[in-house]
Amino acid sequence: MKEKNIDVVETKYFSFGKEDKLVLESGDTLGPITLAYETYGELNEKKDNAILILHAFSGNAHAAGFHSGDKKPGWWNEIIGSNKAFNTNKYFVICSNVLGGCGGSTGPSEIDPKTNKPYGLSFPMITITDMVNAQKKLIDHLGIEKLLSVAGGSMGGMQVLQWVASYPEMLRSAIPIATALKHSPQQIAFDEVARQAIMADSNWQKGNYYDKAHPEQGLALARMIGHITYMSNSSMEKKFSRKLKEKNYSFSLDIDFEVEGYLKYRGTSFVNRFDANSYLYITKAMDYFDLSEGKLFPNGQAATARFLVIAFQSDWLYPPYQSIEIARQLKMRHADVTYCEIASSFGHDAFLLEIEEQSRLIKHFIDTTHKRI
Amino acid sequence: MKEKNIDVVETKYFSFGKEDKLVLESGDTLGPITLAYETYGELNEKKDNAILILHAFSGNAHAAGFHSGDKKPGWWNEIIGSNKAFNTNKYFVICSNVLGGCGGSTGPSEIDPKTNKPYGLSFPMITITDMVNAQKKLIDHLGIEKLLSVAGGSMGGMQVLQWVASYPEMLRSAIPIATALKHSPQQIAFDEVARQAIMADSNWQKGNYYDKAHPEQGLALARMIGHITYMSNSSMEKKFSRKLKEKNYSFSLDIDFEVEGYLKYRGTSFVNRFDANSYLYITKAMDYFDLSEGKLFPNGQAATARFLVIAFQSDWLYPPYQSIEIARQLKMRHADVTYCEIASSFGHDAFLLEIEEQSRLIKHFIDTTHKRI
Repeated sequence: MKEKNIDVVETKYFSFGKEDKLVLESGDTLGPITLAYETYGELNEKKDNAILILHAFSGNAHAAGFHSGDKKPGWWNEIIGSNKAFNTNKYFVICSNVLGGCGGSTGPSEIDPKTNKPYGLSFPMITITDMVNAQKKLIDHLGIEKLLSVAGGSMGGMQVLQWVASYPEMLRSAIPIATALKHSPQQIAFDEVARQAIMADSNWQKGNYYDKAHPEQGLALARMIGHITYMSNSSMEKKFSRKLKEKNYSFSLDIDFEVEGYLKYRGTSFVNRFDANSYLYITKAMDYFDLSEGKLFPNGQAATARFLVIAFQSDWLYPPYQSIEIARQLKMRHADVTYCEIASSFGHDAFLLEIEEQSRLIKHFIDTTHKRI
Repeated sequence: MKEKNIDVVETKYFSFGKEDKLVLESGDTLGPITLAYETYGELNEKKDNAILILHAFSGNAHAAGFHSGDKKPGWWNEIIGSNKAFNTNKYFVICSNVLGGCGGSTGPSEIDPKTNKPYGLSFPMITITDMVNAQKKLIDHLGIEKLLSVAGGSMGGMQVLQWVASYPEMLRSAIPIATALKHSPQQIAFDEVARQAIMADSNWQKGNYYDKAHPEQGLALARMIGHITYMSNSSMEKKFSRKLKEKNYSFSLDIDFEVEGYLKYRGTSFVNRFDANSYLYITKAMDYFDLSEGKLFPNGQAATARFLVIAFQSDWLYPPYQSIEIARQLKMRHADVTYCEIASSFGHDAFLLEIEEQSRLIKHFIDTTHKRI
């Protein structure tokens, strides 16, 4: 059947925790909390057709469709829609911006009602667990007792795994993609260098920059480092090789190679859509995340959900061995788990770019899960 | 036979080009030029026992032995000395700081005799070819017509290859280690991000910082990025895993993991021994370097020197496929070439750390080359 885009969508907002504040993993409390979220498709009467999409580090609630007037759709538009992998003719798809983010949910750039100023560094440190606990409030609010599936790539996959650990009884299935049970020291190292780049920017001002110049150079640098890790050596070779911007070397410190110009463009355009403090908080949440060594099933229970674990061969940021370890941990709890390693040269970005094979895998997996209810 | 360290050594200086300036690849001219260099062992009467060691990006002329009062020896001390791989009982070993460097050779931090101030960005852009042309003047000055060998790792290996391209008649053998005929876009990208980190530091002041605060934060950041690429995922795992500095997470933006503290230490200690402008100039020289597609033999001649090409399995900055390509290009010119891939978990740093196996390979190769004279 023909795939169709979702038309115009609007971001919605759900607030909670004004009285009953959220207790964070750090022991701090936070409230009130607002989550920005979008939904696609319709929740059925039995409320058994809901799928929660979890976004990656720099993502947001706008996973599919078009905001009014926009020409660019949401970040996973090719995979969510009519007759697409997450088929909105049949399923009700939800995506919310994470706690600590800067896409409309409560985070360091939002106003602290106590001071009427942006939180800045007075925002408490949050973890992947805290993000998931906030999402749980949204799912409760929507009246959904059991999710047909939770799915996401990269940090989205970490949230998937945290849902498995925190609320296993609420899941019929889960799809962790290009992710890990914990960051390796190399992953932590890349995050830390990016954080240092932001904090070294004299405009950062210990996070108190909202009414002044923003730490744009630091944030752009952080994003440039990130981008190198999102691509693969071979995808860079294909896209750029050693192509020059001009005919000859400049014999100056200017940009000579196309790859340099591309990184600079990606860095500087990022500062228009992302908050530097959110970058610090969310990378720290990823570094803290650790569901290795049995922590995926903290009560030692058997796994009841079905699992589709996806990795990409050229992904060196979240290499396949980390997904294989997820599958192994799931199998140790007798889970119904399928591990798929997709041949791709796109590196970590593949979870956003390898649409066809991912779609085939996901569509069949979701439909099968739904039929078994 | 028992290996022995070289005792106290002194750095020497050779100056040239006061009248007869060096014509650079860019077309600019530069002079006078001073090269800092050290020698170990004795040049024999026939002057046929000289080996030129080329240093890597952040290296210097002090390859072996101890400077008076120092507890730390030169950077390749384990491989240069009495009965070591480069056996100073038999051979005369030379190492010079590259043109553009900051270890005593003429570079952006040295005084421009025209202005009596440091060159800063008025220093002309230099290339690997220019570095080698300057070294050639030093070898001429020492009265050596033919080198027994040229050897070096990383950027040192690029200089080895440039010697092959520029002065093939002066070489009996060559040992390029953990290097490449050209930087891939990924290698260029890492260099460019490091350069951007330096230039984003408000203390950089377009290179004009020598009498003020130096761009230490930017330079430290650049080095941190570099260090991640010098290690391997597995060497980081072995060295740090997810070990914490304190007992628990700080739940702050402070350093939590040992790997973060290590990188920060390596970054901040680097600023005491390296110049930010040299970082910019030398990385640009590496990015410009390109001896691919036959340019290793620009006159189409057959290779006459013997070659030992060494790579390390876990080196993802200069992966083995790049050394295999060097060997292939050499074989296409009917060279006597041996390619050795050493099993190591140390990543790119292996050329400084995998002493035993490298030493066995190099020692036998050099001795055989010498016997064949």
